[in-house]
Amino acid sequence: MQPHVNNILNDLKKDDFQAYLLTGFTNVEYISGYKPTSFAFCVIKDDPVIYASGMDMELARRDSIIEVKEYESYEIMIEELKKEGIKNLAIEPSLPYSTYVRFKDDFKIDSKTYVDKQRMIKTPAEIEKITCATEIAQKSFLELDILNNRNTEKEIAFDLVRLMIENGASKESFDTIVTSGPASSLPHAIPEDKKLEQPILIDWGAIFEGYCSDNTRTIVYSEHQQEIWDIVAEAHDKAIKAIKPEMKCCDVDKVARDIIEEYGYGDKFIHSTGHSLGLDIHETPGFSARDETVIEKGMVITVEPGIYLEGEFGVRLEDTVAISKRGSVIGDLPLNIV
Amino acid sequence: MQPHVNNILNDLKKDDFQAYLLTGFTNVEYISGYKPTSFAFCVIKDDPVIYASGMDMELARRDSIIEVKEYESYEIMIEELKKEGIKNLAIEPSLPYSTYVRFKDDFKIDSKTYVDKQRMIKTPAEIEKITCATEIAQKSFLELDILNNRNTEKEIAFDLVRLMIENGASKESFDTIVTSGPASSLPHAIPEDKKLEQPILIDWGAIFEGYCSDNTRTIVYSEHQQEIWDIVAEAHDKAIKAIKPEMKCCDVDKVARDIIEEYGYGDKFIHSTGHSLGLDIHETPGFSARDETVIEKGMVITVEPGIYLEGEFGVRLEDTVAISKRGSVIGDLPLNIV
Repeated sequence: MQPHVNNILNDLKKDDFQAYLLTGFTNVEYISGYKPTSFAFCVIKDDPVIYASGMDMELARRDSIIEVKEYESYEIMIEELKKEGIKNLAIEPSLPYSTYVRFKDDFKIDSKTYVDKQRMIKTPAEIEKITCATEIAQKSFLELDILNNRNTEKEIAFDLVRLMIENGASKESFDTIVTSGPASSLPHAIPEDKKLEQPILIDWGAIFEGYCSDNTRTIVYSEHQQEIWDIVAEAHDKAIKAIKPEMKCCDVDKVARDIIEEYGYGDKFIHSTGHSLGLDIHETPGFSARDETVIEKGMVITVEPGIYLEGEFGVRLEDTVAISKRGSVIGDLPLNIV
Repeated sequence: MQPHVNNILNDLKKDDFQAYLLTGFTNVEYISGYKPTSFAFCVIKDDPVIYASGMDMELARRDSIIEVKEYESYEIMIEELKKEGIKNLAIEPSLPYSTYVRFKDDFKIDSKTYVDKQRMIKTPAEIEKITCATEIAQKSFLELDILNNRNTEKEIAFDLVRLMIENGASKESFDTIVTSGPASSLPHAIPEDKKLEQPILIDWGAIFEGYCSDNTRTIVYSEHQQEIWDIVAEAHDKAIKAIKPEMKCCDVDKVARDIIEEYGYGDKFIHSTGHSLGLDIHETPGFSARDETVIEKGMVITVEPGIYLEGEFGVRLEDTVAISKRGSVIGDLPLNIV
């Protein structure tokens, strides 16, 4: 059995829970190695089991390191758990309310972040996969030759995905953002059917063996754009330099935010400074003003300050940082690629 | 205000609820026209409002037909709702448990399927978009020239997405399945780095103006494969022919399932006969043995029987059916494309 399962069993025992219910696809994957394609109920207990949908049985039996049964109905599943003497059940916080309702009359229920917390600390093997994903994504970005690229935003976004797949990614880690001109002030802009305007903002990532990467670069042209770029780059660099274990996540956010505020753009930095990534592109903890999580070795968190001037343009610069003694940037793509 | 909001307000009044909370991205999009990229709390009440994340404010103000405020904290949002005299709150069934917990002490809460139910019945404009998505996907499939295609599964899957985007799709509606040989017995197989074996199974769809399409074709070669294909085609055709308003969804499933059972492959048809689609690729109701929803005009549901022989191969054939007086297949791609 994977160490992940054993750690969860220890957590359960400490809190006097008999079982833990997971349905999130990447949570099930993290625990078992099997990523559902339809639905699955993973119950971690002394004798852990996954109730998988009939259509997933071949896949689940092939990939899961824990026992797999075919799901038949809520009634049968609940009856089986009750027969084992299970009376209280921890659930993942993201469990849909409608699923919670199915279980709430038969078990004493509380939500617990056991898996989220374990997933915060990546193993060396996980960091290696994130590193490979990042290297594939950055190599592909360079192959785009963005400075001489005469295609449309939509074509460039598509070409970048093609290059990442050719370079070994299974797919993109989120919808690739290639935006330019005024639309770059939307942090999650959608590529359009138009040639590149100025500045150019690209936010992209690859998935390698299930693990995500995430980077953003902005290429600026005018003096005003360069001025904003310099501020964002300063916030990016100083936040990364500040990162170390035992510091709180919110204090890293503060480093970046204070710099941008000093230059008078505090209200134009409209999101948090970064998020963890792994099997999902957005995981916890994040470098946000409200996240008091203490940074630990093994966390992998992005740093991505930005300034967004509605009607004008936006600048964002993003790298992914693996935390050891200090924060070390994954990949070697320069911030300034001109 | 959109008729959608008014219909929901009527539902709320009937059930004595004062407000309805939605956070699912396509639910918020359906109601307001604004699709969140980060998070949003849409509260339908006499004076409906969306609390959007700061980073989405420019987008939300641009796209939403209902009022948008910037989300600050749960506390402030809950205080504002309480000040308006709101005491009971309906929630969408898919709401995460952790979000439910934030509201449960301040409001009487129950989950309601108001939006899911409205989304079941597509307007002519919605059916038009699904039709465009299907036509783009089918045209792109034909351009692939699959019978003479010497590329790998992964390359073909990628080419199909490229063609769909060139033909006007915004993106694929789900991860394109191009599988062949024994792997085709996995209903949700992942394309591999290998040349096509036999049979070839392709399950693909496009998104056009937010709306999804979904089709599957299987190209068979041996006599045994053809025999299985014929059974699946019979189930597909007869199920579609049977569809009419006022029939129950489970009875359509039964038509397809009975045929496959008669031929002795009942235990190899390991999923339901179909699912609705729209803004999401999987919506309710579905043609499944347990779904007793009565079919109504305006529903758009797939019919996709399959037979999966582990270690050998799988066959699935899928079309999308718009329900008017009877079921009418969207698109005109023949089942047998050889």
